[in-house]
Amino acid sequence: MSIYDEALSFHEKVKGKIEVISRVEVNNSNELSLAYTPGVAQPCLEIQKDPDKAYIYTRKWNTVAVISDGSAVLGLGDIGPLASLPVMEGKCVLFKKFADVDAFPIVIDSKDVDEIVETIVRISKGFGGINLEDISAPRCFEIERKLKERLDIPVFHDDQHGTAVVTLAALTNALKIVNKKLNEIKIVVNGAGAAGTAITKLLLSAGAKNIILCDKKGVLDPNSDIDNAKRELANLTNPNGERGLLKNVIRGADVFIGVSAPNVLTAEMVKTMNKDSIIFAMANPTPEIFPDEAKKSGARIVGTGRSDFDNQINNVLAFPGIFRGALDARAREINEDMKIAAALAIANSVEEDKLNENYIIPKAFDLKVQKEVAKAVYDAAIKNKAIK
Amino acid sequence: MSIYDEALSFHEKVKGKIEVISRVEVNNSNELSLAYTPGVAQPCLEIQKDPDKAYIYTRKWNTVAVISDGSAVLGLGDIGPLASLPVMEGKCVLFKKFADVDAFPIVIDSKDVDEIVETIVRISKGFGGINLEDISAPRCFEIERKLKERLDIPVFHDDQHGTAVVTLAALTNALKIVNKKLNEIKIVVNGAGAAGTAITKLLLSAGAKNIILCDKKGVLDPNSDIDNAKRELANLTNPNGERGLLKNVIRGADVFIGVSAPNVLTAEMVKTMNKDSIIFAMANPTPEIFPDEAKKSGARIVGTGRSDFDNQINNVLAFPGIFRGALDARAREINEDMKIAAALAIANSVEEDKLNENYIIPKAFDLKVQKEVAKAVYDAAIKNKAIK
Repeated sequence: MSIYDEALSFHEKVKGKIEVISRVEVNNSNELSLAYTPGVAQPCLEIQKDPDKAYIYTRKWNTVAVISDGSAVLGLGDIGPLASLPVMEGKCVLFKKFADVDAFPIVIDSKDVDEIVETIVRISKGFGGINLEDISAPRCFEIERKLKERLDIPVFHDDQHGTAVVTLAALTNALKIVNKKLNEIKIVVNGAGAAGTAITKLLLSAGAKNIILCDKKGVLDPNSDIDNAKRELANLTNPNGERGLLKNVIRGADVFIGVSAPNVLTAEMVKTMNKDSIIFAMANPTPEIFPDEAKKSGARIVGTGRSDFDNQINNVLAFPGIFRGALDARAREINEDMKIAAALAIANSVEEDKLNENYIIPKAFDLKVQKEVAKAVYDAAIKNKAIK
Repeated sequence: MSIYDEALSFHEKVKGKIEVISRVEVNNSNELSLAYTPGVAQPCLEIQKDPDKAYIYTRKWNTVAVISDGSAVLGLGDIGPLASLPVMEGKCVLFKKFADVDAFPIVIDSKDVDEIVETIVRISKGFGGINLEDISAPRCFEIERKLKERLDIPVFHDDQHGTAVVTLAALTNALKIVNKKLNEIKIVVNGAGAAGTAITKLLLSAGAKNIILCDKKGVLDPNSDIDNAKRELANLTNPNGERGLLKNVIRGADVFIGVSAPNVLTAEMVKTMNKDSIIFAMANPTPEIFPDEAKKSGARIVGTGRSDFDNQINNVLAFPGIFRGALDARAREINEDMKIAAALAIANSVEEDKLNENYIIPKAFDLKVQKEVAKAVYDAAIKNKAIK
C-alpha cells in the first residue's frame, strides 16, 4: 500500500486528528455553577474591567489559531479552504505534540487580502497567537503586515518564518564546519515566494551581506515588472548588481538555498560554486538537486526537506517552540531577534563533537530542542521588551 | 467564600476550561508522514474533488463553533467579546460532557450584523455546526436568518431555541398534570427578546393558538413603534386583540412564561389566572416570582431557571443532544420539527408514574435524556429530509 493510500485509511479511521476536550468536571450542580452559571459571571466581569485577565481566566494564554485560505497548500497549490483542513489539523497535532500548545484550525473562505485580514482581526480576541499557514505569495506578505499592525498578539506565517529560522539554524552549523562567516559569503536563494523572501530577510537580519535572490526568470531586477514585495527584496539584495539566470550567478557562490522547484540545480552549476559549497535543496518532495548528485559535483554539505536524507531542514523544529516561548512571555509579536534566537538555539542544540557534514541540524522528534527554542525565544522576547 | 469568589479561584486554577488535543501519535517519521506530509496530501485531494469527504477525513463532522459577540451575556448584558470567553468555554465544556461534541469558542469583535454574518460564513467551512450564543435581540434574529440562508450546516441560537425547546418540554408535561390541551389554553409570554420570541414561535409551531406576548410596555401592539421582529410576532399572536399591561392580560391565563425581569409577576396577578395555573418564571438569578409565593397565590405548577428549586428549565437539557442528533444525521439545519421532537423527547423522558407538580422535567445531569434527544432529533432530521 502506498503512503497515500495508507494516509487515506488512516484519516478515515481516526475520524479527525484533533479533538476539543474539557479540562473541568461538571458532574453536579455545584461543579456546573463554578464552570458555568452563575459563577462564570465573575471571571467575565474581571475580564471586562481588565482585558489582560483573559490570560488568567480563559485558555487564551495557550491557544493559537492555525489559519489558512488554502491557497498554497503543500505542493498542491490552491486547493481551497476546506481541502486544506487535513493539513491544518495536522499542524495543530504538531503544536500539541511538540510544545503543548492548543492549536485550532480556522480555514477562511476568501482570497481577498482585506477580507482575510478583517476576518482574522474580528475573531482574534480569543486567541493568544495567530499562525498563518499555506497562504500564497505575495498575498501572505500583505496579510501578515496588516495583521501585525492591528493585533497585539504574535502573528507568524510559518511557511515564511519557520522555514527561515530552520534554514538559518542549518546554515549556522554548516558554516562552522566549513569555517566561513555569514557576512563574508555569497548566498544564492532560488525561489522568491513566501519562504525565499523570509529566508532572505532573516539572513540579512542575521548579518549576511551578499545574497542574490532568483526566481524563474533569474536574478530579481528592481527595474523589471515585478510585484512590490519582490522589488523591495531586489533592492535589499545583490549588492554587486549581478544579472542573469541561476546558472550565471551560482558561479562562485558559497551557499545555494532552494525553495523553488524540482531539479533546477544541475551538477554543472554546482561545479561552478566556491570550494566547500553548501546546498540546501528544499523543494518538496523532489529537491532542486538530489544529495548524492550534489556531493558528486563537489558540494560539501547538503540538506533537503526530506526525512529520508541527512540534514532534514524541517519547520517542525521551529514553530512549536517559537510559539511556546512567545506565549509564555506573552509576547506582542515574534520579531527578528526572537527568530534569530530560535535559529541559534536549534543550531546550538547540536553538540560540537557530534556536528559533521551529515548532521548539521537535530532530528525533528527531539523534544529537548523545542524546549531550548522556547527558552531562547522567551528570553529574547523579554530582553526585547516584545512583551505586553 | 461566595460562589463568585470560588469561581474566580477555580478559573485561575484550571487555566482555561477547554483544551485541544491530538487524536493521533506522531512519535516517528512514519507516523508523521501519515498524519502530516507527505501522506496528508491524499485526503486533501479527495476533499478537493468531493467536499463531502471532509466529513470523513477531518473532524468537521463533530465540531461546532460556539460563537458570540458578547452583546447579551448571561444577565450581564453587553460585556464585549473577550469578557464573554469564560461563558463560551463553559458552553464548550457542556457540549463535550453531555454529547461528546467538539465545541470551540469563537468570540467576534463586531456588533454589526453583516460583519458578524460575513465573518461566520468565511470561517464556517471547518465546522459541522454553528451555535450562536448570547447575542442581543433583535440583531440575533437577523444574524441567524442570514446565516441559515447562506450555510448548509445547522445554525442554532441557543438562547432562543434551546430555551424554547426546554420550555415546550416542561409545558407539555405540566399540561398532562392539569389535563389541559396546548391548543385550548391562554398563554402569556412576558419578555419579547431572544428567548420570548423563540418560545412564542415554537409554541405556535407545536399547536398553541392563544399566546399573548408582552414586553415592558405591555402587550405588543403591531401598530406601535416597534422593531420588525416584534411586529411580526405581534401579528402572529394575540388572536383576541387584547390590550394593556401584563396585569391586565394575565387575567384568565392558564400559563405564564417569564423570560423578562425579577419580580414582575405579583401575587395579585397570579390570583387572577385561571384554575390550575402554570408559571415558568425563568428570569435569572431572580425569577419573575418566587415559587413559594406563586404557589401561595394559587399556581399549581411552578418552574424556574434555577437549580435550587424544583422544575429547573435548563437549556443544557436540549442543546447538546440537539447538536448530537443533527451532526449524526449530517443535517443541513435544525428546523421546527427537529426542535419539537427534542422537546417531546425531554418531556417523555419523565416516566408517567414519576410525573408530578414538582417533577415535570428531568434533571440536567441525566445523560440518558441527552441520548433520547439526540435520537429524536436524528430521526426527525431523516424524516424531514433535513439532511445533506
